[in-house]
Amino acid sequence: MFGVTILGNNSAIPAYDRHPTAQVVTLNDQLFLIDCGEGTQMQISRYRIRRSKINHILISHLHGDHYFGLIGLLTSMALLGREQELHLYAPARLKDIIALQLEVAVTTLPYPLTFHPLAEEGVIMETPKFQVECFHTRHRIPCWGFVIREKRKPRRINKETIGQYEIPSTYFEKLKEGDDYETKDGEIIKNEWVTIPNKPARSYAYCADTKFDESLCEKTKGVTVLYHETTYLKDLTERADARFHSTTEQAATIALKAGVQRLLIGHFSSKYDNLDAFRDEAREVFADTDLAIEGVTYKV
Amino acid sequence: MFGVTILGNNSAIPAYDRHPTAQVVTLNDQLFLIDCGEGTQMQISRYRIRRSKINHILISHLHGDHYFGLIGLLTSMALLGREQELHLYAPARLKDIIALQLEVAVTTLPYPLTFHPLAEEGVIMETPKFQVECFHTRHRIPCWGFVIREKRKPRRINKETIGQYEIPSTYFEKLKEGDDYETKDGEIIKNEWVTIPNKPARSYAYCADTKFDESLCEKTKGVTVLYHETTYLKDLTERADARFHSTTEQAATIALKAGVQRLLIGHFSSKYDNLDAFRDEAREVFADTDLAIEGVTYKV
Repeated sequence: MFGVTILGNNSAIPAYDRHPTAQVVTLNDQLFLIDCGEGTQMQISRYRIRRSKINHILISHLHGDHYFGLIGLLTSMALLGREQELHLYAPARLKDIIALQLEVAVTTLPYPLTFHPLAEEGVIMETPKFQVECFHTRHRIPCWGFVIREKRKPRRINKETIGQYEIPSTYFEKLKEGDDYETKDGEIIKNEWVTIPNKPARSYAYCADTKFDESLCEKTKGVTVLYHETTYLKDLTERADARFHSTTEQAATIALKAGVQRLLIGHFSSKYDNLDAFRDEAREVFADTDLAIEGVTYKV
Repeated sequence: MFGVTILGNNSAIPAYDRHPTAQVVTLNDQLFLIDCGEGTQMQISRYRIRRSKINHILISHLHGDHYFGLIGLLTSMALLGREQELHLYAPARLKDIIALQLEVAVTTLPYPLTFHPLAEEGVIMETPKFQVECFHTRHRIPCWGFVIREKRKPRRINKETIGQYEIPSTYFEKLKEGDDYETKDGEIIKNEWVTIPNKPARSYAYCADTKFDESLCEKTKGVTVLYHETTYLKDLTERADARFHSTTEQAATIALKAGVQRLLIGHFSSKYDNLDAFRDEAREVFADTDLAIEGVTYKV
């Protein structure tokens, strides 16, 4: 299972029962919470996300609509008796804010909260099966995007053909990595004769808040699903630019140039009640676009 | 109009679509927001409270379920273009928290936010028509209750009897204050012959979070409506005491001993889904008790 569940798809001012930004990425048994606007803990309950499975929280930047719900979530986890470690990846100053809010409440968290300040682009978390990368987006204050990427999966031994060759099983790991095999007689057994490709490694990129920035294409190149903000429709390109946000057309252009498989758009301005035009405008540029709708899980 | 609208009636962990503490007191054209738990700005929209009419916010204490929604409300007011002054009455450290959160967002508020740190019991705001008082409650960290009190209303001239006496109209203001009138001949015209009492001055007391504390009876003596927390049912008196909270029986006892007209109870623990027992237990001690239900306005 690799998917993203939308908990908040609105920009700063909550409206029309749309909430400020928050998403949960599920990757097998791992839940990653990306951004945590006000009310995220209520949305987590509403959509029955298992909060005890959230061990990693990523915060893109310190505008309130992306983190004002964090302290409430952290303290509720404490009241609910959490003991397991929680990792928080965020701009450095968030640590001061949390510390101050706990201090005035004369409260300590009963679980270890490990703070990882975001400092430079690159891999911020790595396991044998996946890695998480962060990258700069272009916003009014320092802002980070994230890619959650499965690692390239090894090829699989072709059980139907492997018996036709005399290859020692100790060499199988190398076959899975794509190597050919050379027999004692110097004969080359081509890798593709005895292995088959595994499912491709999937990846999810979250572009947080950003103005149109073509450098994002390189950073999100070829991902399976790209989330890109679309605060405005394309007629408000100047406003989007002035406020360091993007339009439908701009988000879809990034998706097209980055060669992604699928585009999710969100962070809709509170000025829009109906969202149909967002979908339609983006699809004119990039057909495989969907609106990020709260409560819906999109497969990666 | 004098009433209180409940926006959040739950204790710390939101549950069963109940929200952390927030209330709006309407007194004629004034709206007072008392406490501001996470999600208050959404509740304000949901129940169509006119946020532009909120000029005074009172925060009882710095446990998160009473203020985590404040920064979101303040910044949304900014985004909505508020210009008019906003008065905030709260424990002093809240100023540091707000300042830090604005600083990291590189944001300034476009309206004057006047911070009034709560320091000692007494009147914290006064107009010709009403006053607001604060008082200590007994909680794990410093915590304040509030009384919003109409001023004693002057008596009214009795139009049916006033014509029977020769009293100069310049003396009417004194009549309204309750004075008798002495004619040139030394005859006393008793005040009650020529005036009638006005409606009694009403008052609303908010006891925030508190353990059972009989000193609250004196502070809320005779108010029209008393809000008192009831985190637990009476079988959990020990737990209530240990956590500096109150039970149904304790809240109703305070109401009874304070001689109030009506009791509102709230701040229900998330362990309770159904609230009937709260109402029933409190009414055994104090009949005029109602549950504080979200979205409902209770007349003062």
